[in-house]
Amino acid sequence: MSDRKSRPPAASSPDAAVPKAVVSRLSLYLRELQHLVRDGHQRTSSSQLGTLLGFSDAQVRKDLAYFGHFGHPGIGYRCDDLIKAIRKILGTDRDWPVAMIGTGNLGRALLGYKGFTHQGFRIAAAFDVDPQRVGATIEGVRVFHLDQLDTVGHDHKIKLGLIAVPAPAAQSVADRLVAAGIEGIVNFAPVTITLPDHIRQVGVDLAIELEQLSFAVVSRGAGDGAD
Amino acid sequence: MSDRKSRPPAASSPDAAVPKAVVSRLSLYLRELQHLVRDGHQRTSSSQLGTLLGFSDAQVRKDLAYFGHFGHPGIGYRCDDLIKAIRKILGTDRDWPVAMIGTGNLGRALLGYKGFTHQGFRIAAAFDVDPQRVGATIEGVRVFHLDQLDTVGHDHKIKLGLIAVPAPAAQSVADRLVAAGIEGIVNFAPVTITLPDHIRQVGVDLAIELEQLSFAVVSRGAGDGAD
Repeated sequence: MSDRKSRPPAASSPDAAVPKAVVSRLSLYLRELQHLVRDGHQRTSSSQLGTLLGFSDAQVRKDLAYFGHFGHPGIGYRCDDLIKAIRKILGTDRDWPVAMIGTGNLGRALLGYKGFTHQGFRIAAAFDVDPQRVGATIEGVRVFHLDQLDTVGHDHKIKLGLIAVPAPAAQSVADRLVAAGIEGIVNFAPVTITLPDHIRQVGVDLAIELEQLSFAVVSRGAGDGAD
Repeated sequence: MSDRKSRPPAASSPDAAVPKAVVSRLSLYLRELQHLVRDGHQRTSSSQLGTLLGFSDAQVRKDLAYFGHFGHPGIGYRCDDLIKAIRKILGTDRDWPVAMIGTGNLGRALLGYKGFTHQGFRIAAAFDVDPQRVGATIEGVRVFHLDQLDTVGHDHKIKLGLIAVPAPAAQSVADRLVAAGIEGIVNFAPVTITLPDHIRQVGVDLAIELEQLSFAVVSRGAGDGAD
């Protein structure tokens, strides 16, 4: 099983009581709630959240019930309260200093990705082995040599690492992250990496989005016509 | 509703009979099957697939039953047959020429992303407005000016577009893709875009992976100890 842990999109938590799919949907609920607040809404309902995401209202209620009681009879959910509650459940109510390993095109793109900061993730340090890149500052983040992972990781209290190195280097980088005391890894390299059981890991497979899109285009063509 | 269509990770197909979550899991089954074949396995079962992905075997059978009967009593699934069937369902059994709009760090990273090619997606042309980039070839893909989208898109029979431009430019790029006859869009820009109902769209929110990871780390700490 240990070599099967980098599969997207759910986190590897084989012993958690909450199904991965439910945790995955929490992120979607959180985004919808954040959009609702941004658009000036203060309240919502399981029915509205469900409609926005294409789930049933029963599904929404069942998912949230894993974590407690958040709604109010006749009122529904207060968006701000539910956002706070979900962030607490997801653990994103705290500061998560993140290490970025690899500062090639993908690493640079991720360093500039605004979506991380919006959700509470802060890339505290970047690492590379290329002498041309070490010492540089990209998107406000200092690039250190990979050999400094231990000390810099410790100084910045880094718990999560993003791997954006070429596939052949991914496993050795992962091993070094583990040795440096990182607790969780997001692997963007298109390769499976093996980690000790106590390290949490998610893999990112960008082709999945394209498959979902091709399904939508194909099923539209076969099914309900042009509109 | 139309401004709510770029939400990850499911494709927007409000009128499809198959729940988005099921389609999303098809991609996961496909990846596991591809890994099984790569590892030398010829057959699998709903129980094995479920275990690999953290779903119940009943869930696997129910998901696949939306599309037909694929298993054989006493044998389970033939991996190659099921891969073929799922690729046909997802529409990835055909050639999908894709347009990449934007050749900054993210666009370049995506142009070099091996995972697309492995699943049958071929980036046929890239587009940008920066005179320094137009005319270049990146990862074997020619960069055209955005003004050439109509003609180049038509010549290459492009049906899907990837948007990897800065957020403020995403909507106007999306409008131009629609005008050029593209049928589906994956939006990597961290902003919501509005499209006509007949255009399929998925949004990519990379922070979701990090949220799933922080949940796994947090719930591990609170729950079952260090291992």
